[in-house]
Amino acid sequence: MATRFYGLVSTREPVTSWGRWGADDELGAMNQVAAEQVLAGLAEAVTGRVVSLATPIRNNQGFGLVGRRPAAHYMVRSGADYAAGLPERAGFGYADDVIAMPTQGATHVDALAHVWRDHTMYNGFSAREVTGRGARRLGIDKMPPLVTRGVVVDASAHREPVRAERLQQLLHAQDVRLRPGDALLVRTGWLAAALRGDADGTRWPGLHPDCGDLLAGAGITLIGADNPGVEAFPSPDPACQVPLHVQLLRDHGIYFSELMALDELCAARRPTFLFVLAPLPLVGAVGSPVSPVAVL
Amino acid sequence: MATRFYGLVSTREPVTSWGRWGADDELGAMNQVAAEQVLAGLAEAVTGRVVSLATPIRNNQGFGLVGRRPAAHYMVRSGADYAAGLPERAGFGYADDVIAMPTQGATHVDALAHVWRDHTMYNGFSAREVTGRGARRLGIDKMPPLVTRGVVVDASAHREPVRAERLQQLLHAQDVRLRPGDALLVRTGWLAAALRGDADGTRWPGLHPDCGDLLAGAGITLIGADNPGVEAFPSPDPACQVPLHVQLLRDHGIYFSELMALDELCAARRPTFLFVLAPLPLVGAVGSPVSPVAVL
Amino acid sequence: MATRFYGLVSTREPVTSWGRWGADDELGAMNQVAAEQVLAGLAEAVTGRVVSLATPIRNNQGFGLVGRRPAAHYMVRSGADYAAGLPERAGFGYADDVIAMPTQGATHVDALAHVWRDHTMYNGFSAREVTGRGARRLGIDKMPPLVTRGVVVDASAHREPVRAERLQQLLHAQDVRLRPGDALLVRTGWLAAALRGDADGTRWPGLHPDCGDLLAGAGITLIGADNPGVEAFPSPDPACQVPLHVQLLRDHGIYFSELMALDELCAARRPTFLFVLAPLPLVGAVGSPVSPVAVL
Amino acid sequence: MATRFYGLVSTREPVTSWGRWGADDELGAMNQVAAEQVLAGLAEAVTGRVVSLATPIRNNQGFGLVGRRPAAHYMVRSGADYAAGLPERAGFGYADDVIAMPTQGATHVDALAHVWRDHTMYNGFSAREVTGRGARRLGIDKMPPLVTRGVVVDASAHREPVRAERLQQLLHAQDVRLRPGDALLVRTGWLAAALRGDADGTRWPGLHPDCGDLLAGAGITLIGADNPGVEAFPSPDPACQVPLHVQLLRDHGIYFSELMALDELCAARRPTFLFVLAPLPLVGAVGSPVSPVAVL
Repeated sequence: MATRFYGLVSTREPVTSWGRWGADDELGAMNQVAAEQVLAGLAEAVTGRVVSLATPIRNNQGFGLVGRRPAAHYMVRSGADYAAGLPERAGFGYADDVIAMPTQGATHVDALAHVWRDHTMYNGFSAREVTGRGARRLGIDKMPPLVTRGVVVDASAHREPVRAERLQQLLHAQDVRLRPGDALLVRTGWLAAALRGDADGTRWPGLHPDCGDLLAGAGITLIGADNPGVEAFPSPDPACQVPLHVQLLRDHGIYFSELMALDELCAARRPTFLFVLAPLPLVGAVGSPVSPVAVL
Repeated sequence: MATRFYGLVSTREPVTSWGRWGADDELGAMNQVAAEQVLAGLAEAVTGRVVSLATPIRNNQGFGLVGRRPAAHYMVRSGADYAAGLPERAGFGYADDVIAMPTQGATHVDALAHVWRDHTMYNGFSAREVTGRGARRLGIDKMPPLVTRGVVVDASAHREPVRAERLQQLLHAQDVRLRPGDALLVRTGWLAAALRGDADGTRWPGLHPDCGDLLAGAGITLIGADNPGVEAFPSPDPACQVPLHVQLLRDHGIYFSELMALDELCAARRPTFLFVLAPLPLVGAVGSPVSPVAVL
Repeated sequence: MATRFYGLVSTREPVTSWGRWGADDELGAMNQVAAEQVLAGLAEAVTGRVVSLATPIRNNQGFGLVGRRPAAHYMVRSGADYAAGLPERAGFGYADDVIAMPTQGATHVDALAHVWRDHTMYNGFSAREVTGRGARRLGIDKMPPLVTRGVVVDASAHREPVRAERLQQLLHAQDVRLRPGDALLVRTGWLAAALRGDADGTRWPGLHPDCGDLLAGAGITLIGADNPGVEAFPSPDPACQVPLHVQLLRDHGIYFSELMALDELCAARRPTFLFVLAPLPLVGAVGSPVSPVAVL
Repeated sequence: MATRFYGLVSTREPVTSWGRWGADDELGAMNQVAAEQVLAGLAEAVTGRVVSLATPIRNNQGFGLVGRRPAAHYMVRSGADYAAGLPERAGFGYADDVIAMPTQGATHVDALAHVWRDHTMYNGFSAREVTGRGARRLGIDKMPPLVTRGVVVDASAHREPVRAERLQQLLHAQDVRLRPGDALLVRTGWLAAALRGDADGTRWPGLHPDCGDLLAGAGITLIGADNPGVEAFPSPDPACQVPLHVQLLRDHGIYFSELMALDELCAARRPTFLFVLAPLPLVGAVGSPVSPVAVL
């Protein structure tokens, strides 16, 4: 049980995927998804039912995480202006608006530039590549759309951090075995509680750090959850508060998607499905709001 | 050829889809997409090649359309702060950022609340439902993810507005016949020119108003293009500058997606494909930036 | 008729200043300040001590009033970027930044377009002059800089709304009589409590509605306070929650300045002083952050 | 060494004010303004005429300098919403709004943290004090309101950079001699041209670098102009594009105010006056929009 790197006792050397896909690689675990994995994902969609995995974004409402501000939605022109006397010109009226929000303020995906350790990001890129002008390396614009097999587990019955052993049980109970390129989604119940006004923004259930080896070893491309960080917080790891981000995102280029809406998906009781997640190509950004889709 | 509404001579009554899916319907042509259409779309994806249809969003660069501002990307924390002395705490460093942009400033989808005529929107809802606080009706949060068959035509050889007859020819040449629920994408070449600094923000090629009957009749769910408005601008219609928005979006609840990146898709020479477009669920917004995906 | 001060019993006709300075007047009580009042204000500055009346504006900290968001301060370039490797070019380095905030989010002045009743603003202008594009009439850009005599009273000992009689006593105790063109500032203690995290954003001490006749009659130009609304909230007036805004700002064109920092000024025990308040000339805005100054 | 003013031949050692007012001083040349200077400034106001020195801030209009974005003004609530059916509740209606802008996008004052050289700011503070979280040192919140004597010269007849000798002539012609604590304003005509759409955002008239010794020697507190940088740009100094910022702001803690509206002031033909400039206390910001006032 004496587990891995990150300050916990370990006699093993850290293992990373750096260099595996070339010294200049900025795709990370997206390299695990070739046409074969896309087709395998498509094969999971058998009923044609489409489920959104994105939580609504409301003006002036947020989750108060890491000091992130709620989204601001401004109408620049609206029907009200016409009601106040603006004439419809050229045969029509219209409304227009603006959105301002943290890239990680609602359902989102982290860029590989989001988290680092020892000033070093995935594949050895320096954190100095990320400045006030954005990320020159590993920004979210480097992540292509992800179309692959999705796998979901419902761990919301557990208040304790979900250990690797428990995660395996949940998968086995559904007769699912992780494959390279998979997107694994974990429901913790946090988002539903938060939307009920019933959750704590400073602690949440999620994965235990000992899931790292399992997930890295399986070769998944994305890990997602309905909580703010996928992994449990505060972390049981005394040396690092986000050990899975360090092990999976930084060491192996695995993508994290957080604040996902997983209730409807879990209610459908279909452990595997087609998963589609495409970030906005925000050049130099370290995350993107996303609207992921499951097709059952 | 004496066509419809829009001030052009017509002896026919305007035809709309209002009430067709219920007096309270806010889905519009999304109603054309049931499991059957989703599965038909999935069946188009045979090679597993994934193509992004979203154009990069760059800080401080925009298209200057309708006075829309360029996107603003602000770093809230970055590797530079650590370079300046901020210690990595709790075992990691991280970057965080904010994006502010018009919902229609890059590749986007219009909400059905975006355009109206005679103060009336799709399905008879009053434009007064759209105020400074957002759209209570027909906001983009009412649009579910769209998973359907995509069809693309390349009309970039034409400088003149693309008439219905020409559009039919382009489809026939590819042996494609439009079906209810389709997403039809039209490449005009405008976006590529704009990104080269070579386009005019006050006029662009696109569909001729006489395509309206064809597209409404075919029952498509979405019409997209790589220009700012799908339809040609200025419009040949003397009475309305956006006659297709009025006929298709307002009268029939058909969605518009604009500023799409269609060059790579057209280069692939696959006229039909799986099309996935999921708006951010921005509550009350009249559009959303999107990152649509084609799977060939 | 017979309904002057807002639900309180009255047999008098409403009295307003509408038309007093012309049908097109947008200056309101600024008309009370001519060279004579400016010079009288200057004469109050005898020691040369300068006191700021503005409260600090901090990133991500606000008062949560009327749903107003805290200010957002974004660095666009900083010394950290240079620490991360950006070279000083052309012989220097520099930092640049952006501020986004409600115009009334910190110490501010209300435009005369901020509040109305019966869809009618000061001087009879329709509230329809204020649309999603801003205020065509009575915007803060119409308010010139105010240089005049300031008068301050400390009412922080009172938890009850400050009635006219009490306000008179406070003035008399300092041997001050209000004059046309004065800026009257009232300390309630609310801001100091709020900055200590000790105040309620839904109720605050302030002036009682019965001060309206006194202040309108005196011909003051501006009324300010260290609370969010000058007048007590909730209001004792059952018919209107902001009766003094209606009577003074809307009926008489008197300016309101709120969230002022008055502690140092009151501690100086100088009841009259030179007062300078200049809004940012934000075209069409309904308020402006300000940095008012007292010179003792 | 021996390179005082920035590339121009000099055999003198650089002279700075660092340490003059203490090792921790963040006020810079504000130290030159004591009660005596305030009272001398007040004595200049003899007619009671008030002149605003701030240029209007308009939504979506800017000067395009250093990539700075135009201001964005968003209405959050307006009279139009009421016209569309929102009832006046509790006896009143109101409008509310938000402003987002570069701190240096219109008439503004630079913080001493705005410019540095060799990674070192005024008084020896490291530029690393300015990070993505703002300026811990020398931010604009450290600048108190400035009330002092103002002096204006009209150099708009000159297309060449204004040399020290010419500046002296302009002052002498008005019988004015600079004194410690003065605010010296220089009209170049650039702003008026820019507002006419007639100016170049990449070059402007202004002070020649050889004015540095004169101004530093005079002990002025603030130098202002109606151009984007006070000093001429591009600079005649081959080694530095902003030599006066380096010599005056960084070496001597003298404040710069730019994009000032000086036309009305110059037309008044009063070379000296009371000058009041108070930054918004934006904590950690490197500049602030201001609304300076002259009282003649």
